[in-house]
Amino acid sequence: MADQPLSFVTMLGSLRKGSLNRVVAKALPALAPQGVKITALSSLGDLPLYNADIQAEGFPPPVRQMGDAIKQADGVIIVTPEYNYSVPGVLKNAIDWLSRLPDTPFAGKPVDIMSASPSILGGARAHYHLRQSMVFLDALVMNKPEIIITFAAQKLDVENGKISDDATREIVTKNLEAFAAFARRQGSGG
Amino acid sequence: MADQPLSFVTMLGSLRKGSLNRVVAKALPALAPQGVKITALSSLGDLPLYNADIQAEGFPPPVRQMGDAIKQADGVIIVTPEYNYSVPGVLKNAIDWLSRLPDTPFAGKPVDIMSASPSILGGARAHYHLRQSMVFLDALVMNKPEIIITFAAQKLDVENGKISDDATREIVTKNLEAFAAFARRQGSGG
Amino acid sequence: MADQPLSFVTMLGSLRKGSLNRVVAKALPALAPQGVKITALSSLGDLPLYNADIQAEGFPPPVRQMGDAIKQADGVIIVTPEYNYSVPGVLKNAIDWLSRLPDTPFAGKPVDIMSASPSILGGARAHYHLRQSMVFLDALVMNKPEIIITFAAQKLDVENGKISDDATREIVTKNLEAFAAFARRQGSGG
Amino acid sequence: MADQPLSFVTMLGSLRKGSLNRVVAKALPALAPQGVKITALSSLGDLPLYNADIQAEGFPPPVRQMGDAIKQADGVIIVTPEYNYSVPGVLKNAIDWLSRLPDTPFAGKPVDIMSASPSILGGARAHYHLRQSMVFLDALVMNKPEIIITFAAQKLDVENGKISDDATREIVTKNLEAFAAFARRQGSGG
Repeated sequence: MADQPLSFVTMLGSLRKGSLNRVVAKALPALAPQGVKITALSSLGDLPLYNADIQAEGFPPPVRQMGDAIKQADGVIIVTPEYNYSVPGVLKNAIDWLSRLPDTPFAGKPVDIMSASPSILGGARAHYHLRQSMVFLDALVMNKPEIIITFAAQKLDVENGKISDDATREIVTKNLEAFAAFARRQGSGG
Repeated sequence: MADQPLSFVTMLGSLRKGSLNRVVAKALPALAPQGVKITALSSLGDLPLYNADIQAEGFPPPVRQMGDAIKQADGVIIVTPEYNYSVPGVLKNAIDWLSRLPDTPFAGKPVDIMSASPSILGGARAHYHLRQSMVFLDALVMNKPEIIITFAAQKLDVENGKISDDATREIVTKNLEAFAAFARRQGSGG
Repeated sequence: MADQPLSFVTMLGSLRKGSLNRVVAKALPALAPQGVKITALSSLGDLPLYNADIQAEGFPPPVRQMGDAIKQADGVIIVTPEYNYSVPGVLKNAIDWLSRLPDTPFAGKPVDIMSASPSILGGARAHYHLRQSMVFLDALVMNKPEIIITFAAQKLDVENGKISDDATREIVTKNLEAFAAFARRQGSGG
Repeated sequence: MADQPLSFVTMLGSLRKGSLNRVVAKALPALAPQGVKITALSSLGDLPLYNADIQAEGFPPPVRQMGDAIKQADGVIIVTPEYNYSVPGVLKNAIDWLSRLPDTPFAGKPVDIMSASPSILGGARAHYHLRQSMVFLDALVMNKPEIIITFAAQKLDVENGKISDDATREIVTKNLEAFAAFARRQGSGG
């Protein structure tokens, strides 16, 4: 069981090219434990604003494709900033679309949450609002270790897409090991 | 002071044409106390997904216009569904844009929150997440009476855009009276 | 595995003798699936107010006993009212004590939350605050079906300690079946 | 108006003698703006665990006295740690008692929240749960500047009951000035 290969997808809550959270998401594949592959979902910017009238005419292809990619993955790693003390609208909008898919892709799916922020609380407030949405979606959100990167501008190597701070890189590595064990324990989204 | 005319704007969290919350928002002007004018902000669907790279090139005109309309208003009435146990991405996205405007339009602005839902909790969970965002924005959110319309399909006259349930219409009317008093007490958004 | 007997304990958030939540907690053993035994933890009223200075002199016996009972159980069912839009202080105080025990009893423990209230929202707001505490404690809180009993005075037979409303009894029964399956899947708190 | 003397009371969420939050609370009177007097409410440890059956026989004297002290004050400054990602049970228990008093003392009362913690998030999570309770109580909670003292052990002079970190002392001083202005604007809790 311990050797079962796993495939995780990252979901990035910011559309900004120079986003600190994008740096974190890009750094993850190199920190993953053996046997764990981490790939990025397509941009949340490809989705229109959620509108049930659009849905009634058929789910937009990027929504269906993102839903399929999540269904095939063994877990979802959400890497996101906090906007206005909560989840970015961009990320919430994607969740709103995905939640409407028949056979919703988050049900029973292992989920891991990370946030980074240049400020003192590191995006922590977004975690708990996101967790509340995941209750409705029946996702399985890992508890610990929580990844809340405070003062992220000093801890990330934005140019090279790496986590430069040793302690941060270490806790993120531990988080990925814990998430692999968590996902294996839950079965692959079963 | 009691006679000072007030102008409120409604911000609708759903883009769906047949939205129950749209019915509530449409019913408000007729229930407003004397001297209080309630008009609708333009659709939140006119805003792109928030992206700081777009912002760097200049705020999209619908964002600036919505910000101006809020600044000129004496208060904002947010009427919204709850999606996935939280604030709809569409609404949060608008807040994310508006919050970045220089001289942010929500600072010191009286805010009133209403939700309607066909289900048992009436959208209540969206209220408290929205209130948390409003702390960051330094808005002045009225406490009571809270408008949480449960089983809204039975209480609204969707065809004629009215609140058909007497108790609901009464509490909404009281809410608007309280909000007018609240806004007058705070000064007009000063 | 399906036949493994399970033992759950209930933790009651109200000290009032005539509490609606006490009625719900008392009704659970009779609704439990075969092989599942449900017993009540001792009263949360036996614990002093949390004070680290008291803790420094040794955990009060009722705290240690409650911790042991939770450790030996296969899951904890918290049945609680909502006070002031959040978790009752009485319940939070017990959690604060239990969380300080060496080898904290909630870590990895399956947890199920139920609330009842005479009012329109049924205590729903307490659920999400409680879930946030459980993230820190690394408990495994089941997502669904959520038990939020609105207008509970009409749905409970207070005198005979039963759930008189059919739909409520049915969803509580389903919740207990789901919780037994959830606890078996997680192992007994491992 | 600017010269109206104000009287604030502090409510301390920890019972521990050596509490970091106690140090913060004790440091406040010396940092208050001219004309503002800050005194401590009696210990929350004097209150029994909330029980409606006890209430039915009459409110315990410490509850009534604390309620009276809050009613007479122009504002309440809550200084509290975060326990288990939320409000301490001790503090919530006091709020649960006070909320039941006829003519509830928090209604319309200006409230200011501060937290200190030896850890990275400074007790931030307690703020938003506390704010949610204050919505029900119809208190007027100031938005900004929020006082969230991270790594508090390094910023406080525990022996002399002072805030030793300059930046922290400065922001707390600004908070008290802002709270005095906020309380004057609201009237004295009217």
